[in-house]
Amino acid sequence: MTRFKLYTYFRSSASYRARIALNLKGITYEQVGIHLVKDGGQQLLPAYRAVNPDGVVPALVDHEAGDAGLITQSLALIEYLDETFPTPPLLPAKAIDRAYVRSIALQIACDIHPVNNLRVLKYLKQQFDVTDAQKDAWYAHWIQSGFASLEARLATDPRVGSCVFGDTPTLADLCLVPQVWNARRFKIALDAYPTLVRIADHAASLPAFAAAEPARQPDADPPVPA
Amino acid sequence: MTRFKLYTYFRSSASYRARIALNLKGITYEQVGIHLVKDGGQQLLPAYRAVNPDGVVPALVDHEAGDAGLITQSLALIEYLDETFPTPPLLPAKAIDRAYVRSIALQIACDIHPVNNLRVLKYLKQQFDVTDAQKDAWYAHWIQSGFASLEARLATDPRVGSCVFGDTPTLADLCLVPQVWNARRFKIALDAYPTLVRIADHAASLPAFAAAEPARQPDADPPVPA
Repeated sequence: MTRFKLYTYFRSSASYRARIALNLKGITYEQVGIHLVKDGGQQLLPAYRAVNPDGVVPALVDHEAGDAGLITQSLALIEYLDETFPTPPLLPAKAIDRAYVRSIALQIACDIHPVNNLRVLKYLKQQFDVTDAQKDAWYAHWIQSGFASLEARLATDPRVGSCVFGDTPTLADLCLVPQVWNARRFKIALDAYPTLVRIADHAASLPAFAAAEPARQPDADPPVPA
Repeated sequence: MTRFKLYTYFRSSASYRARIALNLKGITYEQVGIHLVKDGGQQLLPAYRAVNPDGVVPALVDHEAGDAGLITQSLALIEYLDETFPTPPLLPAKAIDRAYVRSIALQIACDIHPVNNLRVLKYLKQQFDVTDAQKDAWYAHWIQSGFASLEARLATDPRVGSCVFGDTPTLADLCLVPQVWNARRFKIALDAYPTLVRIADHAASLPAFAAAEPARQPDADPPVPA
């Protein structure tokens, strides 16, 4: 039995972050696809609720950690992997640099990503009866305002290299790449964010990131025929 | 000069988390109030943008960390304080327990709090023209669904004591207390969440938490006369 099992959805950007971390650490793991759209959302079915009552992905099981071995919330599970498998590190050595990296990661994970979550978009549609155009404008607004703020930070920060911190991927790159992937999926113009695009495209080209890309996952929906 | 300066808003729950952490660590700090409603939002004015281009609170300045000494994102700044002043610890010693505590904290910080942020409520009003009743229902929905999920977790988890992890406050309690405070402010019924209420009320009674309470801050609005 493999030690780790990841409950994942190919398009979930939080799952995408977790997959990159596992790949960077060189950890072999079992993937269980939980489709967030099929069956009204497989994450809400009793079968998955029995594993993770919270009904969200990703969730990581560490079979060596016993009953306590279910870890939810992508940033918590990435920090867990980083503490348990310290090489290569996903956070810098100095506390002040760790704070910088965590701050960028959290700016994406708290300020940009949650507001555009599937369940939020559903609520807008079902309760406020917004049009598709209004929903798209909402989506674009939170990406654009969040990216503008991130771009302003990273464009001038001397800590930035080919990655968010120097030239080695950290927790911040693990959050940035899926968020840029989401933006492209929804056809958000990215011309105003050259630093973010440069960093994300560099990281995305690294093997650990490329192998985590949504379309390459075993649970990916088949491509729509042309 | 005091080493730390915190830009804060008395009602901001992310600022509230930061204040609790500083108090628990016994750190004396200078408070600068940034009023999120007055002047169209003082966090958006050039004076504050010059400090934190991201235009959000809290932001912590560590004068001993030089140019890199601005730390944003409450969870990043709390982890920074925890790494820099290890006593008392805000995370357990074992990696799997740290993952549990971080996961509870992130469930609040990512899944509940951001969707009810002031800027999101403003967007609903300005762009979708929602009624006050619709806005209140939105607010209640994300608290209730998030709390239901948290209650299910904590009601049965053997790691829970008088606090989220055992009997000593951790990062998770620092997130829970302000979120319960928010719920009460918006008059959300809490009867369905007895474990959350028990833990939050216990923690809120501790001196470090009590001193961080919104109404007790120097920047608090004067109470509305009866």
